[in-house]
Amino acid sequence: MTPPEAYANYRHFNVTIPAPGVAHVEINRPEKLNAFYKLMWDEYGSIFDRLSSDSAVRCIVLSGAGEKAFTAGLDLEMNMEMVGGRAKGDEEAPIDPARKAWALRKHIQEFQEAISAAERCDKPVISVLHGFSLGLAIDIACATDIRICASSTTFAVKEVDIGLAADIGTLSRLPKVVGSLSWVKDVTMTARFFGAEEALRVGLVSAVYGSKKEALEAAMRLGITLAGKSPVAVQSTKALVNYSVGRSVQEGLLYTQSWNAAALQTQDVPNAIKATMQRKKPTFSKL
Amino acid sequence: MTPPEAYANYRHFNVTIPAPGVAHVEINRPEKLNAFYKLMWDEYGSIFDRLSSDSAVRCIVLSGAGEKAFTAGLDLEMNMEMVGGRAKGDEEAPIDPARKAWALRKHIQEFQEAISAAERCDKPVISVLHGFSLGLAIDIACATDIRICASSTTFAVKEVDIGLAADIGTLSRLPKVVGSLSWVKDVTMTARFFGAEEALRVGLVSAVYGSKKEALEAAMRLGITLAGKSPVAVQSTKALVNYSVGRSVQEGLLYTQSWNAAALQTQDVPNAIKATMQRKKPTFSKL
Amino acid sequence: MTPPEAYANYRHFNVTIPAPGVAHVEINRPEKLNAFYKLMWDEYGSIFDRLSSDSAVRCIVLSGAGEKAFTAGLDLEMNMEMVGGRAKGDEEAPIDPARKAWALRKHIQEFQEAISAAERCDKPVISVLHGFSLGLAIDIACATDIRICASSTTFAVKEVDIGLAADIGTLSRLPKVVGSLSWVKDVTMTARFFGAEEALRVGLVSAVYGSKKEALEAAMRLGITLAGKSPVAVQSTKALVNYSVGRSVQEGLLYTQSWNAAALQTQDVPNAIKATMQRKKPTFSKL
Amino acid sequence: MTPPEAYANYRHFNVTIPAPGVAHVEINRPEKLNAFYKLMWDEYGSIFDRLSSDSAVRCIVLSGAGEKAFTAGLDLEMNMEMVGGRAKGDEEAPIDPARKAWALRKHIQEFQEAISAAERCDKPVISVLHGFSLGLAIDIACATDIRICASSTTFAVKEVDIGLAADIGTLSRLPKVVGSLSWVKDVTMTARFFGAEEALRVGLVSAVYGSKKEALEAAMRLGITLAGKSPVAVQSTKALVNYSVGRSVQEGLLYTQSWNAAALQTQDVPNAIKATMQRKKPTFSKL
Amino acid sequence: MTPPEAYANYRHFNVTIPAPGVAHVEINRPEKLNAFYKLMWDEYGSIFDRLSSDSAVRCIVLSGAGEKAFTAGLDLEMNMEMVGGRAKGDEEAPIDPARKAWALRKHIQEFQEAISAAERCDKPVISVLHGFSLGLAIDIACATDIRICASSTTFAVKEVDIGLAADIGTLSRLPKVVGSLSWVKDVTMTARFFGAEEALRVGLVSAVYGSKKEALEAAMRLGITLAGKSPVAVQSTKALVNYSVGRSVQEGLLYTQSWNAAALQTQDVPNAIKATMQRKKPTFSKL
Amino acid sequence: MTPPEAYANYRHFNVTIPAPGVAHVEINRPEKLNAFYKLMWDEYGSIFDRLSSDSAVRCIVLSGAGEKAFTAGLDLEMNMEMVGGRAKGDEEAPIDPARKAWALRKHIQEFQEAISAAERCDKPVISVLHGFSLGLAIDIACATDIRICASSTTFAVKEVDIGLAADIGTLSRLPKVVGSLSWVKDVTMTARFFGAEEALRVGLVSAVYGSKKEALEAAMRLGITLAGKSPVAVQSTKALVNYSVGRSVQEGLLYTQSWNAAALQTQDVPNAIKATMQRKKPTFSKL
Repeated sequence: MTPPEAYANYRHFNVTIPAPGVAHVEINRPEKLNAFYKLMWDEYGSIFDRLSSDSAVRCIVLSGAGEKAFTAGLDLEMNMEMVGGRAKGDEEAPIDPARKAWALRKHIQEFQEAISAAERCDKPVISVLHGFSLGLAIDIACATDIRICASSTTFAVKEVDIGLAADIGTLSRLPKVVGSLSWVKDVTMTARFFGAEEALRVGLVSAVYGSKKEALEAAMRLGITLAGKSPVAVQSTKALVNYSVGRSVQEGLLYTQSWNAAALQTQDVPNAIKATMQRKKPTFSKL
Repeated sequence: MTPPEAYANYRHFNVTIPAPGVAHVEINRPEKLNAFYKLMWDEYGSIFDRLSSDSAVRCIVLSGAGEKAFTAGLDLEMNMEMVGGRAKGDEEAPIDPARKAWALRKHIQEFQEAISAAERCDKPVISVLHGFSLGLAIDIACATDIRICASSTTFAVKEVDIGLAADIGTLSRLPKVVGSLSWVKDVTMTARFFGAEEALRVGLVSAVYGSKKEALEAAMRLGITLAGKSPVAVQSTKALVNYSVGRSVQEGLLYTQSWNAAALQTQDVPNAIKATMQRKKPTFSKL
Repeated sequence: MTPPEAYANYRHFNVTIPAPGVAHVEINRPEKLNAFYKLMWDEYGSIFDRLSSDSAVRCIVLSGAGEKAFTAGLDLEMNMEMVGGRAKGDEEAPIDPARKAWALRKHIQEFQEAISAAERCDKPVISVLHGFSLGLAIDIACATDIRICASSTTFAVKEVDIGLAADIGTLSRLPKVVGSLSWVKDVTMTARFFGAEEALRVGLVSAVYGSKKEALEAAMRLGITLAGKSPVAVQSTKALVNYSVGRSVQEGLLYTQSWNAAALQTQDVPNAIKATMQRKKPTFSKL
Repeated sequence: MTPPEAYANYRHFNVTIPAPGVAHVEINRPEKLNAFYKLMWDEYGSIFDRLSSDSAVRCIVLSGAGEKAFTAGLDLEMNMEMVGGRAKGDEEAPIDPARKAWALRKHIQEFQEAISAAERCDKPVISVLHGFSLGLAIDIACATDIRICASSTTFAVKEVDIGLAADIGTLSRLPKVVGSLSWVKDVTMTARFFGAEEALRVGLVSAVYGSKKEALEAAMRLGITLAGKSPVAVQSTKALVNYSVGRSVQEGLLYTQSWNAAALQTQDVPNAIKATMQRKKPTFSKL
Repeated sequence: MTPPEAYANYRHFNVTIPAPGVAHVEINRPEKLNAFYKLMWDEYGSIFDRLSSDSAVRCIVLSGAGEKAFTAGLDLEMNMEMVGGRAKGDEEAPIDPARKAWALRKHIQEFQEAISAAERCDKPVISVLHGFSLGLAIDIACATDIRICASSTTFAVKEVDIGLAADIGTLSRLPKVVGSLSWVKDVTMTARFFGAEEALRVGLVSAVYGSKKEALEAAMRLGITLAGKSPVAVQSTKALVNYSVGRSVQEGLLYTQSWNAAALQTQDVPNAIKATMQRKKPTFSKL
Repeated sequence: MTPPEAYANYRHFNVTIPAPGVAHVEINRPEKLNAFYKLMWDEYGSIFDRLSSDSAVRCIVLSGAGEKAFTAGLDLEMNMEMVGGRAKGDEEAPIDPARKAWALRKHIQEFQEAISAAERCDKPVISVLHGFSLGLAIDIACATDIRICASSTTFAVKEVDIGLAADIGTLSRLPKVVGSLSWVKDVTMTARFFGAEEALRVGLVSAVYGSKKEALEAAMRLGITLAGKSPVAVQSTKALVNYSVGRSVQEGLLYTQSWNAAALQTQDVPNAIKATMQRKKPTFSKL
């Protein structure tokens, strides 16, 4: 399948439209277990920001190329310059710790913004975890909407084992994503491996499939389902759930009032109701 | 059982006191699968606001009349005027989208306030889900305190299928009610059906019973248990848990200090301790 | 094992260092089921505040002496003066309810601060629950990082049965610790007993072991693992997860930027990476 | 001027429509310096809730009858039952301090909700302070939008002098209403009198006029000005400023996006622009 | 003065470096009273984002070209397409109000982000207001750090007069920028003009000068002063004040701890102290 | 006047009780312009924490010994070890920037907690500024309740001039203390001097007196006034205003409900009312 022209020039990502309204983003550096370096997260952020405003797309499936890994995390070799606090990589790197800190804060912020692109993307994003899903894989997955996986997936919040606290989203999102804070502290502090069954039990993923292939097929079916529904309804739901997380119920209700005051005026409502009553499949125009 | 006089005149709700201190609120429009329209949510809000200040009541059980449904959600026929953004239903409905939005925002706010009545009710509310529990059923249930269900219950966050994002509380509360954000996004965006076992696994309900009858009996036993305890203790617990949800731990602890500075002065504490030491059942005066 | 000198003089706690970097805090009043009174929570707070700044310690295991109880909660006999609102216990106790409330608020605040010492402690705290783990046991456990238990543990949020709402942390933390708000309301309002399997299912504990002995051994192994990792990484992880709980994702990401701008400058990162590449076990200096 | 029929039956308030779109609410108990008791704040809340949804009204002016006082605050004689904590006034008033506290909390909440009616009222409210403006006068004024006064006004946050902290809004709003926290603490803790010039200097009022009459005329001119503008624009401005107060800039910007996404679709925008370009006075339909 | 090459190609802005470390950004469309349209705010955002990471720049002065206006606000002719809710300006503009709202929300967000660039810019921004400073001028000024003006400046929050609530920042920031909420509501709802003295009295500007020329010279002196100080100290101060606004004191203190834990390690501190003691002018390296 | 025994042993502070219920805390290191070092802020925090629970004290006046300075800020000579990031001053100071940051964060936190003691002190604190009031003087003053000053006071937020952002409270509190954010940025970034009139104009102080002596006398009169009022009312007012700052109006109202539910039960209310009616001066028992 050839990628849509607009997405053809990414070096480490394949972007295709395998079904109407459904984009498939594939992390494509399998020879390095899909490990990330700066160009990759820049590309990642760019892709999701473009998909967010691409009215031909209504749902996105994210997976990794190859059988071995969704992503093994950061490519340490390519990131050594960051590791030393020389975020810009130049010769005249600052030696003043405050100036290093300034550069590092900017670096973390940009990295976070790239990975958060899936969260701020208007369209729902389904991540299909498989193989090694380590470190950055968890940051990435936590910023997507629906997480499913293959039964043989190996997960770990690996950052502690390279001497740092996960800072690209895992520690901010994981306590809101699953329902056991004891488990969150366990896996984030020990960096231990865990499998698909455990991920399902604590709620990190909402479904487990026998293989990567089956998981991907399930994600595609789910994507097609979502792409067939009212985009006003689906995308409003994503926006309102994301808003509600980490805010009080009262704040959530208040924001919802303003949001739906506009959204309820959509023609999708009478269209959907009419179709339901006529037992037909409704169609909805682009958003 | 005849209803207490104060609650006798509701058109679509039966309110009874089947045991001392325990009120039973039954949604009573079984011929329409207990589907809601404006009069019903006005009545619903009114009932819970009255129960909140009715000192004869210490706990409330909520269920639906008939075997088929707790509630199938909104009665679409009766709500078509809302659907078109003409919230007041009058002839001279505004055609200016901003004026429509103003009316819709007010409409959503009033509807939210009616359904939130169970949450702001001082007394604990146990909802017994059974049969079809769709759409508004989830908004309603999320605003109650304890959710149990019959094993044959059919759940769905159905709003997306009529072209809108759930706006009466589900999207604000569900992420705080269960422990898997992936599952929340899945069911709220797909509008798919799910059953009692799944509801139990993710924590939406805390118990499943073989039938509606058994679930209702269990709820009554639970209600009787709660009605027998110190109302200061039980109602303070509800208030403090609800406050804590969506606020930081520090805010929760601070608010608790002020709350219990008064509540700990209750005679219920020495009464409860004395009764415990004498292995008697304590009694507590009205609150 | 003799306790480190600094920790030798606590009346109701044994503090030992069973392995390098791992402290073991044992509640030691088994003849009273480890029930707490004022001196005990003062000691408890003091111990964790000292351990927090003791650079020889990297991880803490908390358990109760004896087989019967982690702790049965408050020692009611020793706390009767509090129960009556005479927090200072003096003869000229105030009879003005506002002045009583002032003293009670201060009392609750101090009690909360003592029990919160495990949460604000820089180092991770693993609580090993066993036997009776009632009332204050849940407040204590919720303020620790990782909770594991013996299969025969008997849990209850018992406060309602003595006429009060739990005010030392359970109601503020439990909704964030587990993933079912219906269950939280059930156990906090009914004060019913529940066992290890239920605690695991809802996520209150992250592991169950066959006996107290096995659970304690598992905690020690976990403690040794954590003590062997970069303290910058482990302690930053604790700090950032705790910050994130109850705040929005955006607030969590922002705070993480500033925190890691300094923390990423640690030598632990190159040390950890070098050791990983050489397949050696890294060592990390004190923090 | 005869009051509109809907507002004719309030015992202690005159409600008139002195100019198209401008309502005048006059506190009318001059023989008691317009001092409040329960019936009065119930009426006050009811009036503003009705005006909020009365599409004939676009702006509201609030003042007190007589020369002597806007309001001298609570009528202590009429509120003695509250003072003693017997909020329901019944014979069998609770003697348990926790039960009294429960009743008082409800009482304060209802009283706050009545006085907050001016804040939640969709339309802008201009308060005209004059004469004695003591105690509750400040709570009331802080919940209105624009405060102006006569030069002879005597202000005081008087509550401390009757043994209590102002609890109907002054302490929550005053720090946001004026720009000197030192001054806020000074006047709220000393209960001292202050005059119009001081009120203007700290920003409590935004204009001072030579007499009550002049102040009222100025308020009427201001009201007529506001009534002539787009109600979508004016009321949205009130809503968005109120939202922003006490929230972060980021939250304010986010909420504004959703609000104006609907409001910008109003016909008032092209109408206003067209009128401006034609140097005509635009007219705007009801909201 | 020729602009630095990097900033030479903006169509409507002159960017110069009139003194070492001080950039001057001049809005340059005087023939249209510096009124804004989409290209201009895109350029505006781009300029401040670049200046933020340009290590040669330590302070920025913002003014408008010509004597007549800082900016008269939106260029209505160029923004008619937006006004009609057709944000993309294309032929096939959506007629569904929900889809229009979606586009408008995105449009407002992008516009807000452009104007917020001065706020998120690491370096302090001094705005020099003069002539007509209407509508968007206030949004722009409120997002800068220090506001000064010429005595003849004419201000107005003009949006209400074109039928909309100011949505690019004024309503979110003005209540935090000045100290009189009554005044904020007055000027935002009436859209009336006000002058320099009034702006100074309420705190909107912190200084008034006799003419635009004098105000600009004062801004340059202030800019040179700021550029001569430790950039770690100055930029940290901006960051921490901005963080604190709209958050609780406790949150501000906590964030400051993490921020300064890195910033205090700067060599600027010993350099500054040494220079102070030697009564020399210190120099500080780039940040 | 001899200090009360409990406060006699502080090295750099005089604590006296010049009038019943009024404590005077005098910073006493005039030979060094009352500049602070670690022992001093430890003493400062300790004094206010003790005064907070000393029932003989109802109000506190804070000033500096000598004519020259309230305090000139940090004693740089005594704080050099901190400046270098070696917070513990030991030989084996960490060279790892992350470990230095850890120590510095703890150091800032402890310093903040000492200075915040005046804010968390139950009793109102009046600071009398005079002479040099630089750097830490502003942090200290912002944490007190009422600020007054002598007309010759020289103020400056001096921290930027020693290479750092003020981190002991000024940047978190000043934007909430005064009403002009432009002025806050001006004085915190330029570190320029300003005088009493400017401080009064922006609201930093609420009164200016001709000399230190007059200011101190005025503070004493104010202290005596506050000490004569109901301590329940005065201290509740301090607590509720402090709570409200930085939180939304809604949160402030909610917290007030719980607080006053207990506080309104005080005998001070009937006592105050009775005294008022009898035109006598009421007396109130200790709190």
